Amino acid sequence: VHLVSIADISDAAERIRHAVVRTPLLPCPWADPSRPLWLKPENLQPIGAFKLRGATNAVARLDDSARKRGVVTYSSGNHAQAVAYAARAVGIQAHIVMPDVTPQIKIDRTREYGAQVVLVPIAERESAAEEIVEKTGRVLVPPFDHPDVIAGQGTAGLEIGSDLPNVELVLIPVSGGGLAAGIGTAIRALCPNATVFGVEPELAADAREGLLAGTLADWPIERRARTIADGLRSQPSELTFAHLRAVLDGIVTVSEEEIRSGMAVLVHKGRLVAEPSGAVALAAYLDHADELPAGRTVVVVSGGNVDPALLADVLGERDAGVPQ
Amino acid sequence: VHLVSIADISDAAERIRHAVVRTPLLPCPWADPSRPLWLKPENLQPIGAFKLRGATNAVARLDDSARKRGVVTYSSGNHAQAVAYAARAVGIQAHIVMPDVTPQIKIDRTREYGAQVVLVPIAERESAAEEIVEKTGRVLVPPFDHPDVIAGQGTAGLEIGSDLPNVELVLIPVSGGGLAAGIGTAIRALCPNATVFGVEPELAADAREGLLAGTLADWPIERRARTIADGLRSQPSELTFAHLRAVLDGIVTVSEEEIRSGMAVLVHKGRLVAEPSGAVALAAYLDHADELPAGRTVVVVSGGNVDPALLADVLGERDAGVPQ
Repeated sequence: VHLVSIADISDAAERIRHAVVRTPLLPCPWADPSRPLWLKPENLQPIGAFKLRGATNAVARLDDSARKRGVVTYSSGNHAQAVAYAARAVGIQAHIVMPDVTPQIKIDRTREYGAQVVLVPIAERESAAEEIVEKTGRVLVPPFDHPDVIAGQGTAGLEIGSDLPNVELVLIPVSGGGLAAGIGTAIRALCPNATVFGVEPELAADAREGLLAGTLADWPIERRARTIADGLRSQPSELTFAHLRAVLDGIVTVSEEEIRSGMAVLVHKGRLVAEPSGAVALAAYLDHADELPAGRTVVVVSGGNVDPALLADVLGERDAGVPQ
Repeated sequence: VHLVSIADISDAAERIRHAVVRTPLLPCPWADPSRPLWLKPENLQPIGAFKLRGATNAVARLDDSARKRGVVTYSSGNHAQAVAYAARAVGIQAHIVMPDVTPQIKIDRTREYGAQVVLVPIAERESAAEEIVEKTGRVLVPPFDHPDVIAGQGTAGLEIGSDLPNVELVLIPVSGGGLAAGIGTAIRALCPNATVFGVEPELAADAREGLLAGTLADWPIERRARTIADGLRSQPSELTFAHLRAVLDGIVTVSEEEIRSGMAVLVHKGRLVAEPSGAVALAAYLDHADELPAGRTVVVVSGGNVDPALLADVLGERDAGVPQ
């Protein structure tokens, strides 16, 4: 397969510059001094997640004929909002297929961005999207399995490499692998001495199993759906897996309890609201230091679209227990 | 009195560039379309508040003799952390006088930054700081009543003017007035057509009363201390008041309930944790539209150092009620 290059990512950065937030790196004085920490707060993108980068790049690459026909995608949430937002920004129609277990907040927001939402059982989402493509001629913008999407997500890595050229470790959540593929590619090119780790929930660690085996692992969706991190229930495609093999030094897994604890630390010390998927990389930093190299570390906070009830639960349960 | 100029603010920006976060403007797709909204998230500074800008600028301006003697300040919290952090960053000693009603989290963090903390009754904080100056020769870095501090805070306004030159309304919390003085000065210079409003809690609206009367108003500290916004209990000095008269178009006041509601919206829609003082400007935008001009609006989120119990309380009470 053909891998996305740093030039593709630089081109994407120029293309999406006016539509996404150039997020800063946030230094964390509360972190372990032997492992200075910066957060990359992608939860602060207008739709609350990094997905806007890839969707905006993919939409910007459509030709006039495709723009007239509109776009379609399937997603557990953040990519849905990203495509809806990116399509509306340039005045084209969007059709979004979502699993019927998607948190209501993500469904509502996708509709608010003007997209037409179709709810289906989680296992049918890809086929339902393909059916719409056949019937309507709309163009599929996949959540991760496309070079334009990977290059768009990689722009976050370009920013990390530019803001902290001597970074030593980058921790990135892994689901379908588009974010880790893109950021990893950028870091490899810009910071050749840095180590790049993916992070997965223990309950959806298919990518880790695949990387160790050297071939894609396939976990049934019911198994992956156990994790609270609803944004990390996809698994890599051939394309993203080839990138992950090329750019990752390894994958660390975190427990459900560690994810919840990471969310609380982000709120209380980072002043950031993360969804569970957005807290896994910090959880790895906090609870798996022994599996990681020391040194200047960047943690990617990938998204912040969390149900208010879950957030209140996470904060309430550790109100007394979190160190200040 | 001599007012801080845009050149002073530009100089400060150069001086503090490597020590503070250049915060982005965050577009808010959930806002009123007729009043497009951007957040300026100063809660994401390493100490959790804008105060790092002014403190860093003031410390950078000390001569060698003053650096050897060290610095002292009094503060209800965020300025304390800012001076402690800024002093440690350049290796000088800091002594911080804090009111004994300061939230424990702010006391602990100030100590963590290596400063020596002295707790006194709130009415005695200025005299206690002056006593330390006399006894130890340390240099006082006041929380707002100093041109270097005002110029430092103004760098946030420089960034707003640079990122959104056609901004039409800027909303800034007002306590001692350093932040509003600095940002207002920058906006007046860079965006002459913009309107600049201060925001105060109804329960600590001394600056509004003073501006309407054309002379400083003096509210007893017991009266100002009623508000939940513990960072907004100071009142302007002659110096900051002269700036506020020159740069503000008015001051809007918000209720305690509106402040709590603003905090919840920042968490649920902005994915940002704000302390009560940091939420007043958004509260004005949300609940006082009829007192404000329409158009492109920037809300300054000034800080995020909130007690976990208060945050859990605010989120818990409106878990069911907040619109998604």
